[in-house]
Amino acid sequence: MTMPRIKAVLAYDGTAFAGYQVQPNARTVQGEIEAALKKMHKETAIRIYASGRTDAGVHAAGQVIHFDTTLNIKEQNWLKAFQALLPDDIVVHHIEYVQDDFHARFHAKKKEYRYRLFTKPFPDVFRRNYTLHVPYTLDINAMKEAMAFIVGTHDFTSFCASKTNVEEKTRTIFEADILEEDGELIFRFVGNGFLYNMVRILVGTLLEIGKKERSPLDMAEILEAKSREKAGATAPAHGLVLWSVHY
Amino acid sequence: MTMPRIKAVLAYDGTAFAGYQVQPNARTVQGEIEAALKKMHKETAIRIYASGRTDAGVHAAGQVIHFDTTLNIKEQNWLKAFQALLPDDIVVHHIEYVQDDFHARFHAKKKEYRYRLFTKPFPDVFRRNYTLHVPYTLDINAMKEAMAFIVGTHDFTSFCASKTNVEEKTRTIFEADILEEDGELIFRFVGNGFLYNMVRILVGTLLEIGKKERSPLDMAEILEAKSREKAGATAPAHGLVLWSVHY
Repeated sequence: MTMPRIKAVLAYDGTAFAGYQVQPNARTVQGEIEAALKKMHKETAIRIYASGRTDAGVHAAGQVIHFDTTLNIKEQNWLKAFQALLPDDIVVHHIEYVQDDFHARFHAKKKEYRYRLFTKPFPDVFRRNYTLHVPYTLDINAMKEAMAFIVGTHDFTSFCASKTNVEEKTRTIFEADILEEDGELIFRFVGNGFLYNMVRILVGTLLEIGKKERSPLDMAEILEAKSREKAGATAPAHGLVLWSVHY
Repeated sequence: MTMPRIKAVLAYDGTAFAGYQVQPNARTVQGEIEAALKKMHKETAIRIYASGRTDAGVHAAGQVIHFDTTLNIKEQNWLKAFQALLPDDIVVHHIEYVQDDFHARFHAKKKEYRYRLFTKPFPDVFRRNYTLHVPYTLDINAMKEAMAFIVGTHDFTSFCASKTNVEEKTRTIFEADILEEDGELIFRFVGNGFLYNMVRILVGTLLEIGKKERSPLDMAEILEAKSREKAGATAPAHGLVLWSVHY
């Protein structure tokens, strides 16, 4: 008999985590979620699978995980019982029974990441953990021009941290744009997948273009070069949020 | 020779503070600010005076303090040097040399407090320390009706924590209204002064009216009774922010 499989959508504040993935002697998102599930399952360990890992300090508004359960309770009750056992920097938004073969990582078709910049002269003390403070003028049109080059299917080797095990570095970006709201500039990236540090390196490069240290046309050259050294610095983790995952 | 007096406007995230006022073995806003000023003044202690205290967990967007300094540097440089020595949950927005007799507390003419409610079904993990999560339906019109009774000059004994040393409990409320923005209901109170826990007791009472546990007309009766027991519960600290102080 197969155990029912559950898909869960959750948000977390990455500030107080050493990242998503379980590691010894560190507080991780996966560790906290698995500890809550173990309590729900009378001390039986439950392994969870996420759409992907997030680094230390990176947040999620809509991370998706799956796991198998022996509990047979209604989705709404599942959600309440689960939420009650999680720490207050992780919030479950949705619980759903899914088919046995659903896989949070392998079946993800689209992911959206956002990177938030706070652009007013003084940092906003209430958003300091969720936005990068950028108190200088940025050329938004130049950054938008540069972003147009990354839309489509490309080899993103130049925008991948060198310490990676992934061989295949071709990804498709469906959308890349900039939202302006409430004192923030928000970089938005929708793609079929993202390499290690890819969004943060893209943002670091875009900031150099926005500051006019580089030209928007450099973006095409950097992609072409397939070399991490050609791209800009890796932007700090705390401005980044895994916004949503689509199946 | 008198020392130059400085007025400073600052914001802080109250989450990690045991309140504004210095106390032994606790991290306080006043303690952190005075420690930074001591460093700036070659280990000479500098006493600061605020427009008023805020309790543990209460935030400020525009707290005002004054102090005297022996340093003779330009305001913009003062601000930068000061900010560099403060922890990242306190941000200075403004520094200004003022007349010798300026007093942050005694000269305050108007103060604005805001209390933020997050009203969507699930808590927002990124606003959990700055908003009270209220996932049930509130009757906004009933709360507005009740708020109209507190505008004007009244004895606010019913809305003052019983542990207070203040004798005179008459205050004038100039404005009291509700803003709706970005998933939040924000209670806004502008007055010439506020008693201990006054805004939090007002909000606790308004929530009972919003949930239809009490009538808007109760507000007039509660004021009239001059008894803390007649009012509602004290709302939690973390939704409250000292928004601004006017001179």
